[in-house]
Amino acid sequence: MAKKTTLKEFESVFPKLEEDLLSWARQYNLPQEQQDWYKKMLEENAVGGKCNRGMSVPDSVSILLGKELSEEQYFQAATLGWMIELLQAMFLVSDDIMDSSITRRGKPCWYRQEGVGMIAINDAFLLESAIYTLLKKHFKTHPSYVDMLELFHEVTLQTELGQLCDLLTAPEDVVNLDNFSMEKYTFIVIYKTAYYSFYLPVALALHMLNIATPKNLKQAHDILIPMGEYFQIQDDYLDNFGLPEHIGKIGTDIQDNKCSWLVNQALKLATPEQRKVLEEHYGRKDKTHEAEVKKLYNEMGLEKRYQDYEEKRVGELKQLISQLDESEGLKKGVFEEFLNKIYKRSK
Amino acid sequence: MAKKTTLKEFESVFPKLEEDLLSWARQYNLPQEQQDWYKKMLEENAVGGKCNRGMSVPDSVSILLGKELSEEQYFQAATLGWMIELLQAMFLVSDDIMDSSITRRGKPCWYRQEGVGMIAINDAFLLESAIYTLLKKHFKTHPSYVDMLELFHEVTLQTELGQLCDLLTAPEDVVNLDNFSMEKYTFIVIYKTAYYSFYLPVALALHMLNIATPKNLKQAHDILIPMGEYFQIQDDYLDNFGLPEHIGKIGTDIQDNKCSWLVNQALKLATPEQRKVLEEHYGRKDKTHEAEVKKLYNEMGLEKRYQDYEEKRVGELKQLISQLDESEGLKKGVFEEFLNKIYKRSK
Repeated sequence: MAKKTTLKEFESVFPKLEEDLLSWARQYNLPQEQQDWYKKMLEENAVGGKCNRGMSVPDSVSILLGKELSEEQYFQAATLGWMIELLQAMFLVSDDIMDSSITRRGKPCWYRQEGVGMIAINDAFLLESAIYTLLKKHFKTHPSYVDMLELFHEVTLQTELGQLCDLLTAPEDVVNLDNFSMEKYTFIVIYKTAYYSFYLPVALALHMLNIATPKNLKQAHDILIPMGEYFQIQDDYLDNFGLPEHIGKIGTDIQDNKCSWLVNQALKLATPEQRKVLEEHYGRKDKTHEAEVKKLYNEMGLEKRYQDYEEKRVGELKQLISQLDESEGLKKGVFEEFLNKIYKRSK
Repeated sequence: MAKKTTLKEFESVFPKLEEDLLSWARQYNLPQEQQDWYKKMLEENAVGGKCNRGMSVPDSVSILLGKELSEEQYFQAATLGWMIELLQAMFLVSDDIMDSSITRRGKPCWYRQEGVGMIAINDAFLLESAIYTLLKKHFKTHPSYVDMLELFHEVTLQTELGQLCDLLTAPEDVVNLDNFSMEKYTFIVIYKTAYYSFYLPVALALHMLNIATPKNLKQAHDILIPMGEYFQIQDDYLDNFGLPEHIGKIGTDIQDNKCSWLVNQALKLATPEQRKVLEEHYGRKDKTHEAEVKKLYNEMGLEKRYQDYEEKRVGELKQLISQLDESEGLKKGVFEEFLNKIYKRSK
C-alpha cells in the first residue's frame, strides 16, 4: 500500500543534497567564507516551510506504484521534491524583495536579515542553479533527464510570467481597480501558482517512473491546473474569511491592493455605488478603509459565493478524476490525495 | 577564409529571436500589457551593448570552419551568441541593483527606469529563461543539445559564485582591506568574468560544430581562463590608468571600494606606512581621498608592474597557443583572434 511521507522523513534527505551542492562548489575552490554563506543561505531559505509541494512527489510516486517506496526510490522522489522546494525558495526570496515583505515563516525575510540586503538577489539565482546541479548529479543517466530539465525550464518561465502579470496588475503603490479583471486573475493564479505547485510534482513523479506519456501528462495537467486555481481562490477566500488562529496570520490582501478573487468578484457584481466604495477604500494601508471593504464583501454575500464556487469546482474535479484513463499507469488516487488535502481546508 | 561579423549583422538576428520568445509567451495567453513589457524589457537589456561576447561565437565558428558561414550557419552561431548576451543581460540587470549603479550604456539602469524598480529582479529571471526557450526552439535536435544546456547551467552557477565572492569581499558600505587577497581576486575574476566571457563562446562554437571533444574543451579552457583573467586585470588597470576619452567613463574603482588588481598589488607591496595610506583613503566616496590612493599607486610603480605582468602573461598565452594540438579540429586562430582584440587595448 502507498504510505504517506512525513515532514521529518522528507527533511532528513536535505543534508545529503546540501552536501552535494557544497562539494560541487568546493571543487571550484570557493573560499571558505563563501562556502559558509552558501550553506547558511540554502538552509535558511529552502528548509523550514511546510514542504507540501516537495512531499507530494514521494506521495505521488508511492500512489502510482501502489506500494511503499524502497529507500532508493524514496531518496530519488524526495530529491525531485526538494528541487521544487528550491524553485519555490528562489521565488520567495525574490518575491519578498519585490513585495517589500517583512516576515516569512515567522522570521525576517532573507533580504532583511543582517548583512544580506540585495545580495539576496544573487542568492535567489543560486537557489535556482542548485536545481540543475542536483538534477545532473542524480538524474543524468535517467531516461527522462532531458524532459525533467525542460520541465523545470518551462515551469520556471511560466511562474515568472505569472509573477510579471501580478506585479503589473497590482503594483504596491498605485491603486487602479480598472487594472483588475477575472481574465488577468485567472492568468496570474494558473501561471504563478498552479504550474509549479500542482502540475510540477505529479509531472516529476511520472517522469521518475518513466510513465510520463503525452496522454498521462495531459490528463494530469487538465485536472491539476483547475485544482491549483481552486487552491489559490481558496487562499484568497481564507485571507478574508478564514480565522487568524487557523491560517496563522492576519490577512492583508485588501490593504495590500492584491488582485484577489474576492475583489474581482466584487467588481463583477458591484452596482455603481458599490464600485465607488471599492474605489475609495481598496488598497489603503489603513484598518478603517479595510473595514469598509470587508463590510461590502459581507453585503455582497461573497462567502456564500465562494462556497458555491467551491462545491461546483470540486464536483467538476471529482468528475474529471472519475473519468481518468488509468491504462498508461496514471492513478486516480494521485488526484484524490491532492483534493482531500485541500477540500474545505481552514488553513 | 574566415570573415569577421559586424555588430550590424549580429544585431540583425535579434528581431527573429525576440519574435520566437514573444510567440512562445503568446501561446500561454500572456495578456497584451505584459507582452509589451516583455518585448521592451528584452530590447532595453539584451540589445545596445558592444556584443563582443556574442559576436565571438560566429567569429570562432568561422575560424574553426576556415570559411565564411552560410546564412543558416551564421544564424545558428549568432543565436548561440545572443544567448550569451541574454545571460550577460540577466547579470547586468541584477548586478546594477546589487551595486546601486546609476547608469548603464549611457542610460539609467533598468531598475531605475520609470515604473520598473524591483520588477527588474523578475525581469532578470525572464532574461535567463529566454536562453532555454531559444535553446529548445533552435537546438532541440542538435547532438550537443544536452551538453549546451549543461554548459549554460554550469557557467551560470560559476558566474553566480564569482558574484557572491565579489559581494562578500567588497561590500559597498564596509571598507576592510583585510578582506582582500590575490587568491580571492583570482577567484572573483575567473568565476565572475572569464567563464562566461571567454570560455563560454568558444565552448558553444565547438558544440555547434560537434567538435567539443574533452581534449578540445580542455585546451580551450586552459587558454581562455588565463586570458579572461588577463582581460579583467587590464580592465582594472584601465580604470585607473586609462584615458577617460578612450574608456568612455571615469574610473571609480577606488571610491567604490572595488577588490581590484591594483589595490591587491598595492597591499602586497605596501610598507606599513603605505598600508596606512590605503586604510585611510581607499573606498571613500571623495575625490581627495581618491587622489591620495592614486598618488600611492604612482609611487609604487603599479603602471610598470602592470606592463610587466601584461608582457609576461601574453608571452605565456602565445606559448600555450603555439603548442595547441589541432588534431581534433580546434584552431590556433580562434585564440589568436581573442588575444589580438585585447592585447594593449586602450578601451
